[in-house]
Amino acid sequence: MINIAILGFGVVGSGTCEVLSKNADIIKKRIGEEIYVKKILDLRDFPDSPYKDRVTHDADEVFGDPDIKVAVETIGGASVAYEFTKRALSAGISVVTSNKELVSTHGPELIKLAKDNNCVYLFEAAVGGGIPIIRPLYKCLAANNILKIAGIVNGTTNYILSSMKNEGISYEDALKEAQKKGYAEADPTADCEGIDAQRKIAILSTIAMDGKYCNPESVHAEGISKLTTDDIALAKALGCELKLIAFFRNNGDSSASAYVAPHFVSRECMLADVEGVFNAVLVEGDYLGEAVFYGRGAGSYPTASAVAGDVIEACCKGSVDMSLRAWDDSVSVFKDYDDIKSDFIVYSKTEDVASVFADAKVLEAEGIKAVIVSAVSEKELADKIAGKSGIGYKHYLK
Amino acid sequence: MINIAILGFGVVGSGTCEVLSKNADIIKKRIGEEIYVKKILDLRDFPDSPYKDRVTHDADEVFGDPDIKVAVETIGGASVAYEFTKRALSAGISVVTSNKELVSTHGPELIKLAKDNNCVYLFEAAVGGGIPIIRPLYKCLAANNILKIAGIVNGTTNYILSSMKNEGISYEDALKEAQKKGYAEADPTADCEGIDAQRKIAILSTIAMDGKYCNPESVHAEGISKLTTDDIALAKALGCELKLIAFFRNNGDSSASAYVAPHFVSRECMLADVEGVFNAVLVEGDYLGEAVFYGRGAGSYPTASAVAGDVIEACCKGSVDMSLRAWDDSVSVFKDYDDIKSDFIVYSKTEDVASVFADAKVLEAEGIKAVIVSAVSEKELADKIAGKSGIGYKHYLK
Repeated sequence: MINIAILGFGVVGSGTCEVLSKNADIIKKRIGEEIYVKKILDLRDFPDSPYKDRVTHDADEVFGDPDIKVAVETIGGASVAYEFTKRALSAGISVVTSNKELVSTHGPELIKLAKDNNCVYLFEAAVGGGIPIIRPLYKCLAANNILKIAGIVNGTTNYILSSMKNEGISYEDALKEAQKKGYAEADPTADCEGIDAQRKIAILSTIAMDGKYCNPESVHAEGISKLTTDDIALAKALGCELKLIAFFRNNGDSSASAYVAPHFVSRECMLADVEGVFNAVLVEGDYLGEAVFYGRGAGSYPTASAVAGDVIEACCKGSVDMSLRAWDDSVSVFKDYDDIKSDFIVYSKTEDVASVFADAKVLEAEGIKAVIVSAVSEKELADKIAGKSGIGYKHYLK
Repeated sequence: MINIAILGFGVVGSGTCEVLSKNADIIKKRIGEEIYVKKILDLRDFPDSPYKDRVTHDADEVFGDPDIKVAVETIGGASVAYEFTKRALSAGISVVTSNKELVSTHGPELIKLAKDNNCVYLFEAAVGGGIPIIRPLYKCLAANNILKIAGIVNGTTNYILSSMKNEGISYEDALKEAQKKGYAEADPTADCEGIDAQRKIAILSTIAMDGKYCNPESVHAEGISKLTTDDIALAKALGCELKLIAFFRNNGDSSASAYVAPHFVSRECMLADVEGVFNAVLVEGDYLGEAVFYGRGAGSYPTASAVAGDVIEACCKGSVDMSLRAWDDSVSVFKDYDDIKSDFIVYSKTEDVASVFADAKVLEAEGIKAVIVSAVSEKELADKIAGKSGIGYKHYLK
């Protein structure tokens, strides 16, 4: 029997308990040992929970217990969760988490701490919820240079954009609806301003660059709160879908680019079809070509599925996971946003944008003049149209 | 330095050599050791290859070399490949392969042989080419009961169906075009009659049932060679796409179902958007919900990407892979096709099919009467419409 602890008994923590308990038989058959939740650390009591007897408020009971091999950190945030994760790893207890804020902010230190203490720090659930993405990147794509990642990694914003499109409602109304359905939080800032996506693409970018750390704070993030039904209509007229895309590119010159912004996504791209709360991550490897990973990016059960998968990995004897490849924050290879060249669609209802961008590809659309401008920074683009009224633009993903 | 051998220097074998060589630096950085292709076993000589000096025709030079830790079997088929795989594993040499025929036919014996000789038999590339699917099933979904798999796992047939739809051409013409482009073989039987898909779904089904072996020969396989442009038009009129689907279901009563057949796929299903040579596999786990894995299911480079990923796994010190979970062929839990209940769309241009299937859901479509009939075997369905002319049906995937 392998004893584990849950730190933080919220939706994901309790979901993880449930999956490990309901599927205990198959898990035991698969790894040859039973996984037992011995302790649950939380400030609250849970008198109605079947696990109430295992709840403790005393961190020493967990981190001082030599029987506990794995701790599930589902507290969230980067304060208490950070302290508890350090305590666990320092005690040689492997930690599994869905906490994108903590992984993206303190990944280099925590991964090193795990290695130094001969245990592991796993975070498959931190990006894409239940969708396998971290382990496939580390393992299945281990022979590839990862050239590009483009992801719809935030279900809340994708749900809002889908509602705006399908119901013809404003951002504000779509947000209210999402809040009513539990898909958006009372304070929607982290989701709607792209901060959640920023953390997730920082994690994926660090992995894609072999551990060269991408600090989320250095990742430009533009959210969806300024988007209007006009933008949705424009996307449609141009044969695109309006999506919040978290983007990474290996520039091939030892530098990399990462940012989060609303994009016009060509209908030929698989990401265009991702609707509602679903997530999808497109990965391009130099030998793999493009692959897409699609599924439920949030929610108690899907996230618990990924957390529990990592718990099983951490429990396996002789488990050697490539997430132990060090994250190195001593230098940054990630460019400032102003220096990042990307593709844009520039459009206007009145101005002849094709004459402003002479070499750009002209798009055919009714009532709108539009061009695709390639390999330009947003700053250069803004400079070029400064003083010209009635011209707009969006990032473009083919 | 870790020495490996390639058995069979065809498109996938030489592609694997190339990825391991071109990306040697990053691979070395990732796993801490260099991977070196020491021997290439093939009947042919390759005087123009940079690897010509490593080519041998003598199997003893490979299997008798104690330096060789991993053999890449890219011979194909189940005769020579079978013998060589047994020799390698018996000598404690791990084997990595893209050979779906061999894995699906002799998996139970070969996995046991690997375990008995303290090495591994890995086959990520056998299903979905470059798309990560085997390892995510074993690892990321380790806490889930896998309830359902529906896959477009054969690029040739998907390409042909896409051409029939987009160009309005017949199966025969689309096949000729695919052959000209190198997407179909001179003898297209294995692809077009569903045999390739049958092997792949047998592998996925065995994994999904925790090693309870699914013999590919027991999997009902209907291909695409009888499909017409009428079928394509019908699919469109019914809001569906016509796709060759490899299907698995855990029936929840300790039995399972697997089959390959053309399906009308609802446009709401992510598989409906998979066009051309691409593959996609939809997996439903009891906690994960649905996830889709999409990408290039064949071709030298994507397949080599997956093979090389497995080589890296096999080379890692202390590598413990769940593909070592035994495959047990002592009992079969898979139902005979005649006993498998599934969903169909039944349609007619003349007959009132709704009166034949009283409880079925009626579909609205111009010029066609159609119903969705649920949980019925194809045999029961055929019996019910026997003697009634002008009624057709297809499997249905929502």
